[in-house]
Formats: sequence, structure tokens, C-alpha cells
Amino acid sequence: MNRIPPRTLSGFMELLPEQQRLFDRMLEILRETYSLYGFTALDTPVIEASEVLLAKGGGETEKQIYRFQRGDSDLSLRFDLTVPLAKYVAMHQGNLNFPFRRYQIGKVYRGERPQRGRFREFYQADIDIIGNEILSVANDAEMPAIISTAFLKMGLQHFKIRVNNRKLLTGFYETLQLSEKSTEIMRIVDKLEKIGRPQVESLLVEEGVDLELVDEILKFLHIQGSNEEVLEAMEEYRGVNETFDQGVDELRLVTQYLQEFGVSPSHFQIDLTIARGLDYYTGTVYETVMTQHPEIGSICSGGRYDNLAEYYTNKKLPGVGISIGLTRLFFVLQDQGYLSTETAPCDVLILPMIEQWDSAIATATALRQEGIRTQLYCEDKKFKQKIAYGDKLGVPFVVIIGEEEEESSQVTLKNMISGEQVRLSRQECVAKVLEECNKRGKIVPITEK
Amino acid sequence: MNRIPPRTLSGFMELLPEQQRLFDRMLEILRETYSLYGFTALDTPVIEASEVLLAKGGGETEKQIYRFQRGDSDLSLRFDLTVPLAKYVAMHQGNLNFPFRRYQIGKVYRGERPQRGRFREFYQADIDIIGNEILSVANDAEMPAIISTAFLKMGLQHFKIRVNNRKLLTGFYETLQLSEKSTEIMRIVDKLEKIGRPQVESLLVEEGVDLELVDEILKFLHIQGSNEEVLEAMEEYRGVNETFDQGVDELRLVTQYLQEFGVSPSHFQIDLTIARGLDYYTGTVYETVMTQHPEIGSICSGGRYDNLAEYYTNKKLPGVGISIGLTRLFFVLQDQGYLSTETAPCDVLILPMIEQWDSAIATATALRQEGIRTQLYCEDKKFKQKIAYGDKLGVPFVVIIGEEEEESSQVTLKNMISGEQVRLSRQECVAKVLEECNKRGKIVPITEK
Repeated sequence: MNRIPPRTLSGFMELLPEQQRLFDRMLEILRETYSLYGFTALDTPVIEASEVLLAKGGGETEKQIYRFQRGDSDLSLRFDLTVPLAKYVAMHQGNLNFPFRRYQIGKVYRGERPQRGRFREFYQADIDIIGNEILSVANDAEMPAIISTAFLKMGLQHFKIRVNNRKLLTGFYETLQLSEKSTEIMRIVDKLEKIGRPQVESLLVEEGVDLELVDEILKFLHIQGSNEEVLEAMEEYRGVNETFDQGVDELRLVTQYLQEFGVSPSHFQIDLTIARGLDYYTGTVYETVMTQHPEIGSICSGGRYDNLAEYYTNKKLPGVGISIGLTRLFFVLQDQGYLSTETAPCDVLILPMIEQWDSAIATATALRQEGIRTQLYCEDKKFKQKIAYGDKLGVPFVVIIGEEEEESSQVTLKNMISGEQVRLSRQECVAKVLEECNKRGKIVPITEK
Repeated sequence: MNRIPPRTLSGFMELLPEQQRLFDRMLEILRETYSLYGFTALDTPVIEASEVLLAKGGGETEKQIYRFQRGDSDLSLRFDLTVPLAKYVAMHQGNLNFPFRRYQIGKVYRGERPQRGRFREFYQADIDIIGNEILSVANDAEMPAIISTAFLKMGLQHFKIRVNNRKLLTGFYETLQLSEKSTEIMRIVDKLEKIGRPQVESLLVEEGVDLELVDEILKFLHIQGSNEEVLEAMEEYRGVNETFDQGVDELRLVTQYLQEFGVSPSHFQIDLTIARGLDYYTGTVYETVMTQHPEIGSICSGGRYDNLAEYYTNKKLPGVGISIGLTRLFFVLQDQGYLSTETAPCDVLILPMIEQWDSAIATATALRQEGIRTQLYCEDKKFKQKIAYGDKLGVPFVVIIGEEEEESSQVTLKNMISGEQVRLSRQECVAKVLEECNKRGKIVPITEK
């Protein structure tokens, strides 16, 4: 037979079972956390009409999109989860209750040049709250609280959510009579951490900003300290520009409520340099860094926008959202050796050593009824090979049923970590395993060093 | 602004939030059940090299595939989860432990002519066990046990898993000297239920089968009764053909172990007419029907195969697998009015009636810490509108915090089903809701009539 060498396309993540289990545990934690905050799951098609997906059009997106013809149809694969959300809300608005809180975790596609740690197919995990005409700023504070809860459940501890407000920035640039250039300025300033101050200075000058104003801008962006200190410093600028004042008020509220949502001050920080280089955002903006690895950039970003679906509907739909680039985050965690080693696909492996499997099957059924993940191993192998199989899987418990056990209606329970072995009745065995599994708890996928 | 009418492509399922919640609950039950039986999750790319995906080549698949060029690459979207599994196992065989038990739930793509209830993008939920060279028949019995457990957890009760064995059929046709035609005969016989006996008769004659043998075949296929009765009837044929005898032995074992796996006899049945019209299967075969809706055809099928990945590797990898066509099943359930009406995105909605949200936020945090899905509603609306919002969501509990509550450090808990309202301390409120939620349990998505 003419065989085809099996391969996976470059830029497409395909994990081995052990890593997949940790990735899936992260997905599970996200689904649980998002649900806990009252978000409803959405699932939209991966393929959409190109005309719909590219309604906004523009730049990089269009170059990177997977687009193809099928029959008469011009089709594209989604490149984010925001455009499909806009389409969905515009299309189904009559059937939705606003504020509409949805989460979506799914694969998106961008034909980027393959590079280490860059993927063409990758998961995004998004939450958004969409209002009808208006939306309370309380929602802006809840977003980072949800992300913080999810990261902590995953085992990630060294992260910081940086918060800023675009109104504050827009207002500030207005006072410097730089409104027309403000979008471009924010785009440049957003790179501050990446390219450094001198480079930002020269880019601003290139953009036609007076040297004096460049100094003003950098002085402003240099304001640092505790959240309270930064807010205090902002008060010095108050009164000159209405938009600025509104931005400060919103930032203050978000800061206050964030604390009440239970987010530790070690996990969030006002940062005036954050602008998110998208003209899309209009108020609160977020970025999240792993504090031990700032070089990775933001692992979770988002913000407030005025109008989600203006390309599809004349209804005004303001919203606030945040998104985790999950595939890239996972790649980084793996790369840094930050992943748990607990990856067994089951809690118990049952090894019948006799040909009659009845007792083995009954034991498996009893364990599963208690929610214990159990695998039966009925292959015709030697005992050593059977135990080696359990070892390779990393399974914490093995149940052995040989002739002696069968005769005495018992089973042997072996703890694969301690090596301890006891003979028990089936019922005792189930109780013992259940107790131990409850002690162990669910997998925490991330273990930072 | 030039607006684009938002639309979703025909043949692509996009659900409203209420239905999506039930669909997701079905996914959750499948993930839980598959894990309970020791299956590990896999996730393979949606896009593969066409050469790899079409290694086997052939017929319908190639016509329906979504295939396109990007740069120099000839790409295709996966049309099932079996070919990607074969690729994965062939590629990563050195890193896998055999038997390798994997589940995969994901979208697949087939450009069928759109028809009511037929989808171009649809979910498959597959489990497979792959052996290295050999694989015990115990695995064949476990498959339907898993499916049965999952369906019962979903709330589906009127289903029957029909089991047969291809060796038994192959052996039988050998005794009739019809080996060369056996694949074609099985293909025809597989349609018995759909097209009826006379039609099958004439198709067999067309195929060149002697009328006498047609009678023999139909007499054989007409054998019915309890599992024990059918197995007994098979004994009459024993001794003439080795393959046949082996098939009967396997079928007997599967039947015996199925019972020991706890599958109720009302949920499985030996059915000699089941052949699965794919030359792929070599032993046990399964089909599942909804007994109240046989017209829908099989909602879950699979079987034993000799060699998973022969197009990619010379290693012999026998396996057994079963697959649920989830999108179609969901469509049918919805169409028949079989879906639950319990679809609230959260358990509790918190309505602060004062501008200070501190107590509301603290209450939300306390509820969430107990795992209660809670939504905060901080929009500036009248009380009636706020309650109407909770009503529309179908949320079972509402917590109201007005001035009186604030002053007395209490909250008002309203049961939206009974209308009952009580004023409680925050702690009492959390305890009360927790108790009620535990009583309600998790959503059972299917409620047959």
C-alpha cells in the first residue's frame, strides 16, 4: 500500500494526551468561572459569508483571513469571536435580554507567517456584556474580577491586570490640542514598554508633535504609584476637560468596585500607559501580564466599546469585553515549564488477572457510580506489563483481581505513589478510593516555579 | 453607514442562548461520562493537508469536502473525527500507551445539499479504543455501556442499542458461497428497515443472488426474539464456518458483559439485520435508535475495525469506536419538543435598588464562592423592569437590596417560581439558596413526552 506520511500543518497546535488534559482542565475552569458570573455560552459557526465577516473591512485582518470560494459562495473562517458576536446580537436582538452576557470559547483562524509560539489556529476565550443603548460602569469592574478568579483557579499567581481609561487619555490629548493625532499617539505610546522611551519620543516627533508637548505627554505617562496615588495625581489635571474628568471618575469607580469584587491589589494596577492600540475602545481598557514574564506581552486584554454592531444594525449596543488568547498562553506555560505533572486520564486502573471479568466489571461500575474515573484493562498481558501500563498513564490507584481475590470476594488496592497495597472488599475499596480522590481534589493545571 | 444584513449560512446551526445552554449541558454530560470510563480528550486541527485527510480517498467524502488552496498549500476541513484520529495515532504512536482510549467532541464539515435537519457544520462526539496489534473483546461490550450511561444522564430513556457482529454475517455468506458479494449484500440488507423486504429482495436478485439464497438470507435475518433466543438460534448454524462461529462467540461475550456493565436489557438488543454499510467494520457493530422515533434512523453508531491507520503506518492498530451525531440529534430533540424548559443562565439575579452597590457586590461574591451562578444587575432601571429581566431569563431566585435592606444589613430573597419573599441576613441567604439549588440539581436537558 502506498502510505502517506502523517503530519500536522505548521502553526496548528496538536497536543499529546498529557498536555491536552491540562489544556482541557483550563477550558473547564473557564467555563465554570464564566458560568459562575452568569454568562451564557454561545457557539457560532467557524465559517461565515465573507461579506458578513469583513463588513468592517480593513488592513491586517483581510490579509490574514482564510477565505475561499465554494460553488457560488465566498466563505471565510472567523478570525476572532467579536465579529461573530456582533453579527449574532444584531441578528437575534429581538430574542435576547439586555444586558446580554455571553461567553464563547472557540478556535479562530489567522494565516500569519508561522513563528515559534504563533499559531494559525488558536483558541480565544471571550466574555462580553452588551447593553441596549446604555451599560453601567459596574460591568467594567466585574470583568477583571472574573479573569482574576479564573487565573487563580488555574494556579496562575504572578499576574497583574493593568487598567486604564481611554476617556482620560482622549481628554488629556484634547487639552494639549492634539485630538486629531490622539489615536496615532496612543498607538505609539502603547509600545512604550516594548520599545522604550527614547524610541517613543522620536516616533511622536515624527508624527509632528511639538517637543514641548512630547515632554508633557511623557511626564503624564510617567505618573506611577499605588492606585490611590495615581488617582490622586489625576485630580491635579481635573477641571480642564470634561471627557478627562469623566474618565477619571470611571477609573475611580472601577478601582473601588474591583476591590469589592474581591480582587487582590497585587493583581491589578492603574497604568496610564495602557491604551490598547485599537480605535475600537472608548472607556475602560485592560491588559494582563505575567509578572515573571513581561516579555510575553499581554495574555488577556479588552475594554469598553460604544457600539458593538454598527456594521449590521442601527441599534446602539455598547459593551465591555475581555479575551484570553488561550493557545498562546498554553504555549508559554508549557515553554516555561509551568504545567502540572498530574495528568492521569483516570483515577483507578482495574487489572483482572483471571479470565472471568465479572468482578472486575462490577468493581468498575461501582467506582464509576461514585464519580471515580475508572479504566478497565482486559488485555491478555503479563502482570508486569499491566502494571507498567498503569505506571505510564500516571494513574494513582490500581485495583488487582486475581484468583485469591476472586475466591475471597475481595480486591487488592494498590496506591501507585506510596506503593502500599491492601486487600479490601469491593465496597471498602470504593470508599477508600473516594476518600483519597476527594483529598487529592481536582487538577490545578498551572504550577509556577 | 452602509450596513451589511447580518446572516448565518444555511446548513450551519446557530442556537439561541436557551437552546445553547441545553446543548452545552449535553456536551458536559458527554465529557463527564467519557472521562468516567477513562477516556482521554483529544483535540486535532479543523484544517489538515488535503493529501493527509484524503489518504484513503474515495467517493462521497471527496465530493462533499471543504477543500481550498492557500498559498502553495492544498488544505481541507476535516469531515469526520476518525481520519484525524488515525493520523494522530500513526504520528504519535511512540508517545501513546496502548490500548489508547480517546474521546473527541468537535465540529466536522461536509458540503451536503442543505436540507431540513441536515447540517454542513456539525458536532461529532466519538470514543475509540485503539490496541497495539490486538484488542480484547471486553472493549466491544464497554462501548454501548458508555453510550447508554450518557443518554440516561441526558434524560433520554426510549432508546435501543442494536448490536450485531460482522464475522457472523461474513461467515454466514461464506457458507452460502456468496463471499464475493457479501459486502454488497450487507449494504443492501442494511436498508431493510428503510425500504422494506420486497425491495431488498429485488435488489439482491439484481445483484445476482439466486432466489433460493435470497430466501435463505431473509429467513436468517428474520430471526428475532430476546437476546438469549437469538443466540440460541445462532447455535443451529454453528460448526459449518469458523468465522461464523467466532462471530457468535464474540456476540455472546458482548451480550453477557453488557449486562454486567449494568446496561438494562430494555436498552440493547441483538439485531441480525444491522451491518453498517461500511466495509471498514470487521466485528461487533452498533446502531442506536430512538424507539419512539425509528424514522430518524441511527443516532449513534460504530463498531470494531481491524486496522485504524493503514494509510499512514504499517503498524497494525485494531480498534473499536462509537460516534454520536450530536447536532442532528439535538435538532431532532428540539423538533420533537423533547428539550427541557429549564434554561436560566444563572441561579440568582441580584438587583441593587440603591446607588451603593457594595452590599450587592459582596452578596454576589459570597454566593459565587459557594458555586452558585450569580448575576449582578446594576443598570439604572425601574424595579418592574429589573424584575421583568429576571423573569425573562427564567432565573429561579432574585435578591433585592433596597434602602431598608441596606439599613438592616439584610437582603430580600425572592423565589421566582413560588413568588415567596423573605428577608434574611447575607449568610442566611447564601445558605438558603445553596440548599434550594442542591435540591434542584443539575439540568437534565432532555424530557421525553
